[in-house]
Amino acid sequence: MGFNIADTDKKRVVIIGGGFGGLKLANRLKGSNFQIVLIDKNNYHQFPPLLYQVASSGLESSSISFPFRKIFQKRKDFYFRLAEVKAVVREKNLILTSIGELKYDYLIIASGTVTNFFGNEVIQSRALPMKTIEEALILRNTLLSNFEKATICTDPKEKQALMNVVIVGGGATGVEISGVLAEMKHFVLPKDYPDLKQSEMNIYLVEGSPHLLAAMSEEASDNAKRFLEGMGVKVMLQKKVVDYKDGKAILDDGNSIETKTVVWVSGVTATRFEQIDNKELGRGGRILVNEYNQLHGSGNVFAIGDVCLQTETDYPNGHPQVAQVAIQQGLLLADNLKRLESGEPLKPFHYKNLGTLATVGRNKAVADLHKVKLHGFIAWLVWMGVHLRSILGVKNKIMVLIEWVWSYFTYDQSIRLILFIPKKERDKQED
Amino acid sequence: MGFNIADTDKKRVVIIGGGFGGLKLANRLKGSNFQIVLIDKNNYHQFPPLLYQVASSGLESSSISFPFRKIFQKRKDFYFRLAEVKAVVREKNLILTSIGELKYDYLIIASGTVTNFFGNEVIQSRALPMKTIEEALILRNTLLSNFEKATICTDPKEKQALMNVVIVGGGATGVEISGVLAEMKHFVLPKDYPDLKQSEMNIYLVEGSPHLLAAMSEEASDNAKRFLEGMGVKVMLQKKVVDYKDGKAILDDGNSIETKTVVWVSGVTATRFEQIDNKELGRGGRILVNEYNQLHGSGNVFAIGDVCLQTETDYPNGHPQVAQVAIQQGLLLADNLKRLESGEPLKPFHYKNLGTLATVGRNKAVADLHKVKLHGFIAWLVWMGVHLRSILGVKNKIMVLIEWVWSYFTYDQSIRLILFIPKKERDKQED
Repeated sequence: MGFNIADTDKKRVVIIGGGFGGLKLANRLKGSNFQIVLIDKNNYHQFPPLLYQVASSGLESSSISFPFRKIFQKRKDFYFRLAEVKAVVREKNLILTSIGELKYDYLIIASGTVTNFFGNEVIQSRALPMKTIEEALILRNTLLSNFEKATICTDPKEKQALMNVVIVGGGATGVEISGVLAEMKHFVLPKDYPDLKQSEMNIYLVEGSPHLLAAMSEEASDNAKRFLEGMGVKVMLQKKVVDYKDGKAILDDGNSIETKTVVWVSGVTATRFEQIDNKELGRGGRILVNEYNQLHGSGNVFAIGDVCLQTETDYPNGHPQVAQVAIQQGLLLADNLKRLESGEPLKPFHYKNLGTLATVGRNKAVADLHKVKLHGFIAWLVWMGVHLRSILGVKNKIMVLIEWVWSYFTYDQSIRLILFIPKKERDKQED
Repeated sequence: MGFNIADTDKKRVVIIGGGFGGLKLANRLKGSNFQIVLIDKNNYHQFPPLLYQVASSGLESSSISFPFRKIFQKRKDFYFRLAEVKAVVREKNLILTSIGELKYDYLIIASGTVTNFFGNEVIQSRALPMKTIEEALILRNTLLSNFEKATICTDPKEKQALMNVVIVGGGATGVEISGVLAEMKHFVLPKDYPDLKQSEMNIYLVEGSPHLLAAMSEEASDNAKRFLEGMGVKVMLQKKVVDYKDGKAILDDGNSIETKTVVWVSGVTATRFEQIDNKELGRGGRILVNEYNQLHGSGNVFAIGDVCLQTETDYPNGHPQVAQVAIQQGLLLADNLKRLESGEPLKPFHYKNLGTLATVGRNKAVADLHKVKLHGFIAWLVWMGVHLRSILGVKNKIMVLIEWVWSYFTYDQSIRLILFIPKKERDKQED
């Protein structure tokens, strides 16, 4: 096999991962004198902040994703390859992948994170993570299928388990999912499933720390809790789900909740590669890098975004794993690569925190913006604007806008399709 | 288990299948004094005429499908059940299904057809049919994956097989798929896959009879052939694909075509139910019915649409299996059911053929309209109008319109996502 890439006199920049960081880097290098190879295990870039909308049938998966080949259509000396990277062999300047070896002049690891199940294999096989479009669709399928089953279920205990949803993890994703499921319960369930009683659908949000949205301000955290509880979500703080068996989510205080649906959004861990040792990793498996995003001891191997751990004065424990960090690191690295080629000194990275937002349903959000804290409908508008700007392509912006406007004015969630259940979810159902 | 449907004094009308016929029937019975139960194996109604667009990445699957629960949100005494029907037990007035038994006062079989593989199990396991959204998505995944593999393939023979597509069946579906794949070859491949040579993608359309679109006029048929050949499709008439093995589609004349992609759209057969005997079926397994769409010997069991075979003076061999027949039969049957209840005489069915259309790419179509034969751009406009009117829901019309307009003006096919490959397609790939 092999990558089938033409040899060239140009220096070859290999980017592992086309998320926010890798994409910005690749875009910024347009017109540079590099040969660029972008490798991703999917053929499209996806927009994680809106995944929860796909999971709750509010958005079409194609509204939040964009094929790489379309993004880079007009680029010269640019290659996209669909592959998974297994190992980084720094002494030979090459990577080992599912489609063969590839030599690099510069390597940028921008592969992000994966769901952290904390070593619990039972939970890993039965709970539903929500990091990718495929997982969001599986969650959507599961919810809709469970409602269908509940309509014909005569055993009250079984019916309750089909109607209960337990969301583990009170960060932005958990808060967002809880919010849209609460909306589904109030605005869609009564219309679509008149056989089911709205009150029977219980949504539990379980968080191990004392606060929801622990990475945001206390005000944001309190508002989120208030909004969710106002929508009927049962928020359980300082509790952990330690196991999931016999149809029960088991908490660390010994209690349990009967449920067929456990959504696992309680932690991430950095992607791993062979031949990058554990001693080169920091907390969460993140690859330690210096102020230029270089791996220690490597002049030509870099890591940006969620996968890396970089410290600076304001962030002694590393940056938050958010899109803005990845985007800013990617932009700077592109310029630094050009400086390397021209012999100029590199610039160190300093994160500019422009703000954090988390949505809590149809017209509520909490935001910590620079010097300002917002909540309520204004925060939701700001968030809508910020997110739309980041989505690539004019058409996608229009599609998302139409979906959102429709959803906003009609409390409608039209994409309620149960599509073929993939093998992974079928295995779960056979329990 | 069981259907969990309230008992009632009203007569219960059970409809098997929510396609064009079943849906129109259910809609027409709104406000009638029946309890209605609609059963379908999917939770959404799909619009088959545009499936080929989903397969070629021109349309999102949700643009051509509409969840039943949303369509029937406001209906009283209406039940939707997700289930598969196995048997019809007429002597007991009940059906046997995957979720239990259900008694009926009136039963309407509107379950349509399935792909006919003519008993060839090898082809059934390896070829790609195109009758459902799931199958259209599998085809899309397969095409895109094959292109990705072709970019890194160094063996010319293997590469050619990845780039060849053989479409078996020269009816409307085969013609439509050939047309959009030819467009993909000319307008998308060079932009997205600069590594691949456009000329290497061969599209073969194999038809057993002497004509494409054999159900249409000779003029339509000739125009379709002319359009397709003008787009580079290799049309092979009076040829059949008899087998598919070792990566070769084998023709009845002994020749073979190396290909990884065989699209099987060459025939349908009616859905079958236990306890409806073969002697009650006509050609293609279609259930024989009288002029009121009643099964022989059954006053209260009916069949409409593709699944039934009804003859009249102008159609001594039965009606064509098209949407208009199903829609008209459904409408009449709704009124006839009311007549049955009020003791009025029933009206017999007479098909009004308003015309047939088949699209052949971006701005070409062939149409046999009442007394008029059209082709070219005008036919395409007419077809666009006819199809849009049938799609349910204002929002879906807007989405489809935006997709089409975008596609029309930019030759763009943006939905080029390879999403999780379902088990079925994975088995195919392991060959």
